[in-house]
Amino acid sequence: MERPLTQNRVLFLPANQSADFPSGLSVLEACHQLGIVLSAPCGGAGICGNCAIVVKSGDYPPTPADLEYLTADEIGRGTRLACQAKITGDSVLLIPEPKKEEITGILTFGEKRAVEVCPSVKKLSVKVEKPELDGNPFDSEDLLFAAGLSADNLHVPLSMLRHLPDRLRQSDYQGTLVISDEKLIDFEVGDTRELCFGLAVDIGTTTVVGKLVDLTSGRIVAICPRLNSQRSYGDDVISRISYANDKENGLSFLQQAIVNMLNEIIDDLLRQAGAKAEHVYEMVVVGNSVMEHLFLGVNPRYLAEMPYVPVFRGPHILTAQELGLHLHADGHVYVFPLIGRYVGGDTVGVLLTLAAKLQQIWLAVDIGTNGEILLCNRGQIISCSTAAGPAFEGAHIAQGMRATAGAIDRVKADSGEIKCHVIGDAPAIGICGSGLIDAIGTLLLMGVIDETGRIKLDDELPVDLASITRERIVGQGRERRVILKKEDDGSEVSLMQRDIREAQLAKGAIATGIEILLQEAKIGPENLEAIYLAGAFGHYIRKDMALAIGLIPKVLEEKIHFIGNAACTGAELALVSTRERELAETLAMTARYVEISANPSFQDIFANKMFFELG
Amino acid sequence: MERPLTQNRVLFLPANQSADFPSGLSVLEACHQLGIVLSAPCGGAGICGNCAIVVKSGDYPPTPADLEYLTADEIGRGTRLACQAKITGDSVLLIPEPKKEEITGILTFGEKRAVEVCPSVKKLSVKVEKPELDGNPFDSEDLLFAAGLSADNLHVPLSMLRHLPDRLRQSDYQGTLVISDEKLIDFEVGDTRELCFGLAVDIGTTTVVGKLVDLTSGRIVAICPRLNSQRSYGDDVISRISYANDKENGLSFLQQAIVNMLNEIIDDLLRQAGAKAEHVYEMVVVGNSVMEHLFLGVNPRYLAEMPYVPVFRGPHILTAQELGLHLHADGHVYVFPLIGRYVGGDTVGVLLTLAAKLQQIWLAVDIGTNGEILLCNRGQIISCSTAAGPAFEGAHIAQGMRATAGAIDRVKADSGEIKCHVIGDAPAIGICGSGLIDAIGTLLLMGVIDETGRIKLDDELPVDLASITRERIVGQGRERRVILKKEDDGSEVSLMQRDIREAQLAKGAIATGIEILLQEAKIGPENLEAIYLAGAFGHYIRKDMALAIGLIPKVLEEKIHFIGNAACTGAELALVSTRERELAETLAMTARYVEISANPSFQDIFANKMFFELG
Repeated sequence: MERPLTQNRVLFLPANQSADFPSGLSVLEACHQLGIVLSAPCGGAGICGNCAIVVKSGDYPPTPADLEYLTADEIGRGTRLACQAKITGDSVLLIPEPKKEEITGILTFGEKRAVEVCPSVKKLSVKVEKPELDGNPFDSEDLLFAAGLSADNLHVPLSMLRHLPDRLRQSDYQGTLVISDEKLIDFEVGDTRELCFGLAVDIGTTTVVGKLVDLTSGRIVAICPRLNSQRSYGDDVISRISYANDKENGLSFLQQAIVNMLNEIIDDLLRQAGAKAEHVYEMVVVGNSVMEHLFLGVNPRYLAEMPYVPVFRGPHILTAQELGLHLHADGHVYVFPLIGRYVGGDTVGVLLTLAAKLQQIWLAVDIGTNGEILLCNRGQIISCSTAAGPAFEGAHIAQGMRATAGAIDRVKADSGEIKCHVIGDAPAIGICGSGLIDAIGTLLLMGVIDETGRIKLDDELPVDLASITRERIVGQGRERRVILKKEDDGSEVSLMQRDIREAQLAKGAIATGIEILLQEAKIGPENLEAIYLAGAFGHYIRKDMALAIGLIPKVLEEKIHFIGNAACTGAELALVSTRERELAETLAMTARYVEISANPSFQDIFANKMFFELG
Repeated sequence: MERPLTQNRVLFLPANQSADFPSGLSVLEACHQLGIVLSAPCGGAGICGNCAIVVKSGDYPPTPADLEYLTADEIGRGTRLACQAKITGDSVLLIPEPKKEEITGILTFGEKRAVEVCPSVKKLSVKVEKPELDGNPFDSEDLLFAAGLSADNLHVPLSMLRHLPDRLRQSDYQGTLVISDEKLIDFEVGDTRELCFGLAVDIGTTTVVGKLVDLTSGRIVAICPRLNSQRSYGDDVISRISYANDKENGLSFLQQAIVNMLNEIIDDLLRQAGAKAEHVYEMVVVGNSVMEHLFLGVNPRYLAEMPYVPVFRGPHILTAQELGLHLHADGHVYVFPLIGRYVGGDTVGVLLTLAAKLQQIWLAVDIGTNGEILLCNRGQIISCSTAAGPAFEGAHIAQGMRATAGAIDRVKADSGEIKCHVIGDAPAIGICGSGLIDAIGTLLLMGVIDETGRIKLDDELPVDLASITRERIVGQGRERRVILKKEDDGSEVSLMQRDIREAQLAKGAIATGIEILLQEAKIGPENLEAIYLAGAFGHYIRKDMALAIGLIPKVLEEKIHFIGNAACTGAELALVSTRERELAETLAMTARYVEISANPSFQDIFANKMFFELG
């Protein structure tokens, strides 16, 4: 007989939030219900060991996953994995604060074109004629008349009508009118024309960047990068879609997670700049297709099922109020349009950033959790998305990690010896994306890995390989690995055979997308005038190594350019200029989407691109 | 020392609502907080004796107001006036149900022009191409494409994006698209083109009428009249404005009262017609200026202060969701524009009803709680509002009441004797507006009242006055009165000297408005081709009596026409036809507003119009 469900009071520290939960619920699910953010890259399957919490009181016997992922010492101190720990009684649990260094290394800047500042938001100083008995006054109409505007085309929001009469009289009929997208936003007492801000936001699967822009000058006045709090619901877009569908209220949890995080970002930006939320009248958002759906509370489930259909192309204009965001309640939130399927608003942002170069021939690759590719052939733009997966962000790699302190980010051969650079002058604890590519490229060049990606057997290794390196190649079969670095305490960071396979899948996917786009445009790598690498990951890889592993086509190194977080740069451009916003919409509509999986040669090209080209 | 505030639990029957209230709060305020409707014409001042409740348990000692307005018997049974009764402990209180007959007599019909049915809401049957892998599908864009619509001009609401993907797949990509005002409202599974409804609503100060219209045929399928539940916050617009300003959350209580009542009306209409809320896509609202402000939650306070300024002219288009109304959440609520100050959307409704007669010369008078007047001089429309007050609705009249059972509604002289007709074949308990005018007109014609409105002294009465009538004229000075009817139980209904004064103020106000409009248009009563009497009160008065007391200019009786609840008829026209709606907007913009109080002769004309013209 099942034990009846009973309610147990659980207090979460340091947030000091408590609530009652039924017996048997996992601590991770309880966190989701309260909106508490906990990193759970595997989405709660108990296979990544990330969602650690500390039991301060209450009964949580160690689970098999705890024994596998935690040290005896950690278990002794009360650490447990939240996804496996089941609530059975009243308890007090501590959620570790996210480590400061986790949010360093998020790329916030990108190369930006200079554009004329002409934002959608306009502020006008207005002096209104005082109403007289011998007339037919209306507060709102008299205001519009004074501003030289016609009531026919302008919508006055209810909230403004609600405070307008008092403000007019407080200001002695003289104040500042705020207009955006042909809609009135507010009437403010006094001359507030200098106080006019907007937000550019890039919602990535893993990271989110917000920038506060002074719309009078177009200058960025504050920046705030964060890890996407949705990561406690899974690491990649597919696991987020599953969560939205399979869990009760999953979609609304995911939306709320992103809205809450954006509000934290906004609060932080306002603190940095000493600005007020009521003076932030616009927010421009770029995100990949799934992030945009989740942000708007629209279920992206059919993006995960054949034939992969997004609900909308966009763009959207909503109010801050509708979405629950902490800017001016009637401020507009502009969400970038998609190009198609997984080629989202973030890629449109990249395209907008490169819009001055449309008459050239170039390739742009945005390597984030997915890999989106743009090919511009003298004004003709085609695009695709590849399921690269998060390998280059350190996921699915045995000792993979993000590019933060302790990560090996550079590997090179120095007189036959493997040398590693570690971020933050710390002992090596793992390897990040650029380190992974460096390691594979270096080992390829050293002859340790063959063109199929296999770590050679001892007797196949080059005879001239330094013994110090030869000793680092250990293990057999699936467990064969190359020890990249040994620390004094005996700990090691290794590249496993299966890590190489993961990297091959990722680079194969991207290289396949590039190949198919080149075929569609009927051009070869030799025609390319430039290759732009966008995204955090793109920014940190070495050009020679990207070429060595065949991630990008063989071009001269000087043709390769890093353009940083170009998606966010696109959002900034559209924020400071309505012309840029219109250009973004035109580009999104005219860029052709190519479904690479529908290409009859897809499998062949992919199988081929998994290999490495030597020599 | 003041006793600290404590909380007391009060249970209200029959609603079975309970809540805690601080000691000292009046029962009426507690009702307001819970949204319980209680008629309080005086707005809680303790001077009308209307807001009776019955104490079932708890300590409520009789107050001076109870002793004045209630019988000993009623007090003995626990009846108390809610505005004076203070909560001091836990208690159970019964709110009497509004009497059924209170809502009879609300005028719902009016003369209506035949117009072509072309509502703003359109339903299209759509078959959408199924998405293919080898394409670039978007659910919402594919839907618009199939319907032959462009995504550029159409806004798709978020709520629709949220359920569209599932509905498309449930319906095998074949369903019905709902569009209103160039915006998408919904996509429905199956062919639902026959299920398409709209609501026309007239929000009057005292009464509210809702009609459910089948938008496929333009036919009314259900009607629901109600008393305005805001009446528990005061009887006329000025007391409502005071409540909105002087009480904490007063404005939001008033808005909520009207929204709740509209929802009750909607529920009732849907029950009558067997229709579903999700198939009601539009609501057209007319109301006087104050009602429209309160309905939208916009404070009308500056309408009550010189120089009397409304916040907006309108029109407004909002969603049902924004206002909390029980129709389709994305359905539109269209609120009629005002002409100026107290000439509101209801008067625009009257004007629209008469739009076929714009090339003639006519006067239209809508006598409700206020009196709005329109003068049409071959296409030139001028309008004004008069502070007639609610005397013709029975308020401020000693034995005044609405036109319901027990009201004297007709008075005539029959062989020198005063004869009364009573509504509902019941003993007379009071007098309604038409009875008031009849009584005054009859007594004027009998020579009992002189041209100044004074009830003649005994020795001034006509010598030939029947003794049976002479005996009915009693009292001295302010207390002088004419007994209109005596019942067998000894009870009487009288017309007091001060009642005549109230009626003179009301008729004087309206006659002054008419006079000033005629002067503005430089025409005399002899030029009038017609006089239209609109509104519930207008409908029930006798033409000869309206002429006798000088309420309207002297014209031939056959030129006087009753057009019923023309304000609501205007709402119906605008609901069934967008052309009518556009016409209403044009009329509201072009009708000239005349502020009669700014006319230098206003005082003189008003003093003059207070008198009666004899012979």
